[in-house]
Amino acid sequence: MILFYYPGACSLANHIALIETGLPYELVSINHEKKTADGRDFLAINPKGYIPALELEDGTVLTENPVILNYIAEKSGKLLSKKEGIRWQVLEVLAFMASEIHGSYQPFFRNFSEPEKERAREKLKKAFSILSDQIGGKMFLVGDEITIADCYLFWVLMVAPRSGVELPTPLRNYFDHMKIRPAVAQALSEEHLD
Amino acid sequence: MILFYYPGACSLANHIALIETGLPYELVSINHEKKTADGRDFLAINPKGYIPALELEDGTVLTENPVILNYIAEKSGKLLSKKEGIRWQVLEVLAFMASEIHGSYQPFFRNFSEPEKERAREKLKKAFSILSDQIGGKMFLVGDEITIADCYLFWVLMVAPRSGVELPTPLRNYFDHMKIRPAVAQALSEEHLD
Ligand SMILES: N[C@@H](CCC(=O)N[C@@H](CS)C(=O)NCC(=O)O)C(=O)O
Ligand SMILES: N[C@@H](CCC(=O)N[C@@H](CS)C(=O)NCC(=O)O)C(=O)O
Repeated sequence: MILFYYPGACSLANHIALIETGLPYELVSINHEKKTADGRDFLAINPKGYIPALELEDGTVLTENPVILNYIAEKSGKLLSKKEGIRWQVLEVLAFMASEIHGSYQPFFRNFSEPEKERAREKLKKAFSILSDQIGGKMFLVGDEITIADCYLFWVLMVAPRSGVELPTPLRNYFDHMKIRPAVAQALSEEHLD
Repeated sequence: MILFYYPGACSLANHIALIETGLPYELVSINHEKKTADGRDFLAINPKGYIPALELEDGTVLTENPVILNYIAEKSGKLLSKKEGIRWQVLEVLAFMASEIHGSYQPFFRNFSEPEKERAREKLKKAFSILSDQIGGKMFLVGDEITIADCYLFWVLMVAPRSGVELPTPLRNYFDHMKIRPAVAQALSEEHLD
């Protein structure tokens, strides 16, 4: 499988998940002209033009972060409990982060106007408080084992400072312990972010 | 199961899916003070404060539109093929609509500033063109049977005019034939939108 990525972008979640599960993968980066590092036209691979995109062995391309994470979990049998209660909660919080948080980072990534940034900060504040309540003092976001939700949350928290919104203490503590997991450290190092 | 909804809001997708699958359901609306029509405090049911929310028989509450749709499909064994190729494509396009389109409707629902509306229109134009290419002249968004992706797409297209972005012809044709499906007509009628 090939994971198309930018260093430090949300594809980091998929990268961490690939390492945690032990699935074999290749990393291929994209440049700003939408050319892949292996010389292909990225728009022919993903017409939406964004990463993450996962190219499967049969050439099929899968996009959308929470769905790629779900796929990695199902293929590996890891990072997503089959227990009903846990599984739906994991899928739910992934969808929450993708729809309510990811989009609210755009104003900071692309330097939108101050009122737009302020509106995004309001949304982020609310979303972080929801996540903070959910995590409490636990080690992981859902249940007591690492899941694909943690892979995504790690990235969400890593870029949060760019929004200027302060993270609640439970999320800061969570981030600090996630950061030293071997798979997370390895992903950061492979993306030259360490 | 109880579906918490507002008439005409994105919960319409879940409502259509419930009817299509034949699962028994109850509809309970929410008012602007976040009180449910059966007299409960909605924030105690879903701290995120938004609909859709699905209360299961055991009292568990599930939120996030694409995940509720996935749940309805798995419980009923309908509207989501077990074929790998189809299933991942359905989950992918649901995540796409939730993350790239739904959020871009906010400026119109809540009357944000004109520059914010314009930015959202640009994003919507691109997203509609992706969906239009995907549907081509087909009856349904993925494969040749109705799936949960169609339940959500119907709602996406129903509210599109509020953004002022014109829909490509394939999407307009698709909308017209979806609108007369008995389950869709019934959902619209139960929400007093006909
Ligand atoms: N809905 C997509 C959004 C992906 C996305 O926005 N990716 C960003 C990086 S974090 C990107 O590639 N932006 C560059 C672009 O859109 O051109 C998902 O959840 O995977
Ligand atoms: N991420 C959520 C968003 C749901 C959402 O924004 N629902 C709207 C109606 S379409 C709502 O309830 N808005 C009222 C509010 O946020 O107070 C999902 O995909 O289900």
